[in-house]
Amino acid sequence: MNQDRHKILTESIKRLLRRNAIPHLSKIMNKTHAADLSRIFQSLSLSHQHKLFDLIKDIEKKGILFSEMDEDTFLYFIADMKIEDIVAILEYMPSDDVADIIERLPEDKADLILKTMKKKESEEVEDLLRYGDDTAGRIMVPDFIALREDHTAQQAIESLQKEYVDVEMPFYLYVVDEYGKLTGVSSLRQLVVVSPDTPLKEFMSTAVFSVRTDTDQEEVAKLVARYDILAVPVVDHMNKLVGIVTVDDVIDIIREEATEDILKMVGAGQEFVETKSVFKSTKIRFPWLFASCLGGIIAFFIIGHFEKSLSKVTYLAAFIPVIMGMGGNIGTQSSTIVVRGLSTGLLHVRDIWSVVFKELSIGMLLGLIYGSLIGIVAQLQYNLPAFAVSVSIAVITSMSVAALVGSMVPMIFGRLNIDPAVASGPFVTTFIDIIAVFCYFQIATLLLEL
Amino acid sequence: MNQDRHKILTESIKRLLRRNAIPHLSKIMNKTHAADLSRIFQSLSLSHQHKLFDLIKDIEKKGILFSEMDEDTFLYFIADMKIEDIVAILEYMPSDDVADIIERLPEDKADLILKTMKKKESEEVEDLLRYGDDTAGRIMVPDFIALREDHTAQQAIESLQKEYVDVEMPFYLYVVDEYGKLTGVSSLRQLVVVSPDTPLKEFMSTAVFSVRTDTDQEEVAKLVARYDILAVPVVDHMNKLVGIVTVDDVIDIIREEATEDILKMVGAGQEFVETKSVFKSTKIRFPWLFASCLGGIIAFFIIGHFEKSLSKVTYLAAFIPVIMGMGGNIGTQSSTIVVRGLSTGLLHVRDIWSVVFKELSIGMLLGLIYGSLIGIVAQLQYNLPAFAVSVSIAVITSMSVAALVGSMVPMIFGRLNIDPAVASGPFVTTFIDIIAVFCYFQIATLLLEL
Repeated sequence: MNQDRHKILTESIKRLLRRNAIPHLSKIMNKTHAADLSRIFQSLSLSHQHKLFDLIKDIEKKGILFSEMDEDTFLYFIADMKIEDIVAILEYMPSDDVADIIERLPEDKADLILKTMKKKESEEVEDLLRYGDDTAGRIMVPDFIALREDHTAQQAIESLQKEYVDVEMPFYLYVVDEYGKLTGVSSLRQLVVVSPDTPLKEFMSTAVFSVRTDTDQEEVAKLVARYDILAVPVVDHMNKLVGIVTVDDVIDIIREEATEDILKMVGAGQEFVETKSVFKSTKIRFPWLFASCLGGIIAFFIIGHFEKSLSKVTYLAAFIPVIMGMGGNIGTQSSTIVVRGLSTGLLHVRDIWSVVFKELSIGMLLGLIYGSLIGIVAQLQYNLPAFAVSVSIAVITSMSVAALVGSMVPMIFGRLNIDPAVASGPFVTTFIDIIAVFCYFQIATLLLEL
Repeated sequence: MNQDRHKILTESIKRLLRRNAIPHLSKIMNKTHAADLSRIFQSLSLSHQHKLFDLIKDIEKKGILFSEMDEDTFLYFIADMKIEDIVAILEYMPSDDVADIIERLPEDKADLILKTMKKKESEEVEDLLRYGDDTAGRIMVPDFIALREDHTAQQAIESLQKEYVDVEMPFYLYVVDEYGKLTGVSSLRQLVVVSPDTPLKEFMSTAVFSVRTDTDQEEVAKLVARYDILAVPVVDHMNKLVGIVTVDDVIDIIREEATEDILKMVGAGQEFVETKSVFKSTKIRFPWLFASCLGGIIAFFIIGHFEKSLSKVTYLAAFIPVIMGMGGNIGTQSSTIVVRGLSTGLLHVRDIWSVVFKELSIGMLLGLIYGSLIGIVAQLQYNLPAFAVSVSIAVITSMSVAALVGSMVPMIFGRLNIDPAVASGPFVTTFIDIIAVFCYFQIATLLLEL
């Protein structure tokens, strides 16, 4: 739903609420997708939210709306609800979504809900909650098809019709041995084309990708993107099939991880998770800015060290911004390219030298261009060739060093298995600030014989 | 496949090639996924690539390998192949992938291939090529199931068994009227549970999402992510169903768009598309750095304007780096949060004032903290309260203004329908550099009465 339609719908719902036009509202509630309703709810009062919620007839849709609401809206919303009513809805939801919700709740409420739920369902949820955050185990669903490898095609078709008629997305028919270990995968089409008494193990494909319950969700996403599959089977440490991760969850992961990558690079990693509060955001951004502040203070001492030069040639100061700016910007370009390249798999840590060499070449080339340009400006303004040359060389040096550091640091962090996105930003910026200022003053002092 | 396994496999393939161990190589070729083979191909000679390629038995797999190879490797690879051999493989590939390949080829080769292909298939490809880049029409496949709304469930099941047995992913059964216009959607399960003589229009769901052939692919991706669907039907301007976009293409889009977003923000937007050449990269990065260079030169003239102050108090220069750095960094944080928020739909342009107000508050708060800190350093070093206060106020001002500009500029660009990711970077950086330097010298000159 685009902005305009969203706005029109929100307005008309508000109008209908004022007129208390229940039949009309009921029609809208049951026709509009839960993902859109969640956005509309954000701008309604709590009592209006409840009034509309009660109009939804499909209990599964109520569950989707639960999952789609943002954290704050959801917590306020269910604070007023009876535990039994909440549980009635949760029991219609996929267990991975219920686990997400349980995690958001205060502990006492979460416990109460789990106790009230049917035993089988609460156990499924508690099983999921036992796996670490951001692992395959945490986001998998138990809603998969597992056929025995010694069964025939005919037996398999029968069990599909009996046991598995409720499975939402029967893309892949996983095949397991007598211990439940994953041994292969088949498809509806294969079941139909072979002769009915062929055992599955004779025609199943044994090239089946799987992940472990403790595999990082980012790895799962990479697998799905790389091999264009719709679901990944998840096995435990005994290779027993325990769940699948479906592509819709993978899409969410890919979006989240990209956002996290971007925000981490500027030191605002968790901001979208814990939004809204100014103080939380301040706390999140503080450390990154501290690194940069430290760099600035070191630059200050370096400049202080060259105070004698500066007092003789005051206009040395005038070129500090452009030299720092050019170094900082090309350094950010290099590190961004490397960080994103590593996280999408387009670059590999083993290619470190070719990547760094390429970035250094670009840095030197752009340094030559901008160094000459800025040198010409300096010459036109002060007509002092030695000074203009100093400025030029300082720009070339700082841009080359920046491209070198900007590409090498994330590569090294990647090789040390430290997240390049987190570590590169403050490190690269601070380092480049210091190097740029130092080179500039050192070169100028030498060339101008100050 | 992880780094280590990839390395081991590549090494053993190279060893087997030296020993010319054809049976062994053939086994590896037919067992390894095409996505992994494409990576291995990158490090092999052209003749070795062809030798291995000929060992692949499954012609569909050859097609996947075509799609997975990076542009350069692919162009060299097929330069040696006979047109008939290329066409034989293309005819087994989905038409959207063939269109991608045709677009990469030199025009004469592309024409020759299209002429050699079977008429039906080349027409499908040429249809796709007629749609603009990055539109739904360009990435859709004609591989969908369309059932007539006036047919019964029984008739529908029969046509699934006859006409549509080859459709790869039969998740959604689209329903059309007598003119082929999309009117609803149904599922295998629904077909089975209703009584066999019920017409589809009586039980199909009419709440079906669709996009137009000219819809931007990013919009398609948002729809899929928002509503957790596995395919989106694509209709023409008459609402006639002409194709579907499947979730595996959507995953690629989401990854590409996120990467583009990140790179655009630092002025390196197209780098992963046209990689490898240092000159191309230099050209791509040049304009963004030019904006920042211009900002630096303006800052230079501003400082020149305050030369008198500077000659009296040379250590004014020493704080330029830290004041610029703090402003620049918080400005980047603000603009990154806003740009990413807008592109993921977590922020909306209509919320401009609440977003800008929040960022300004964060900027002022962090400005107060770091302004005091840096002021204390200045006081300890020079014991000149008026100077220390100037430095503090300059830090507070530059950080507040930076957060304000950093959040407001992308919001305004978003409202004007200009891509915030492209426009904000250079604009924000340049602006903040200038403002920070100006405020600093102006405040210091006033307070120190220079």
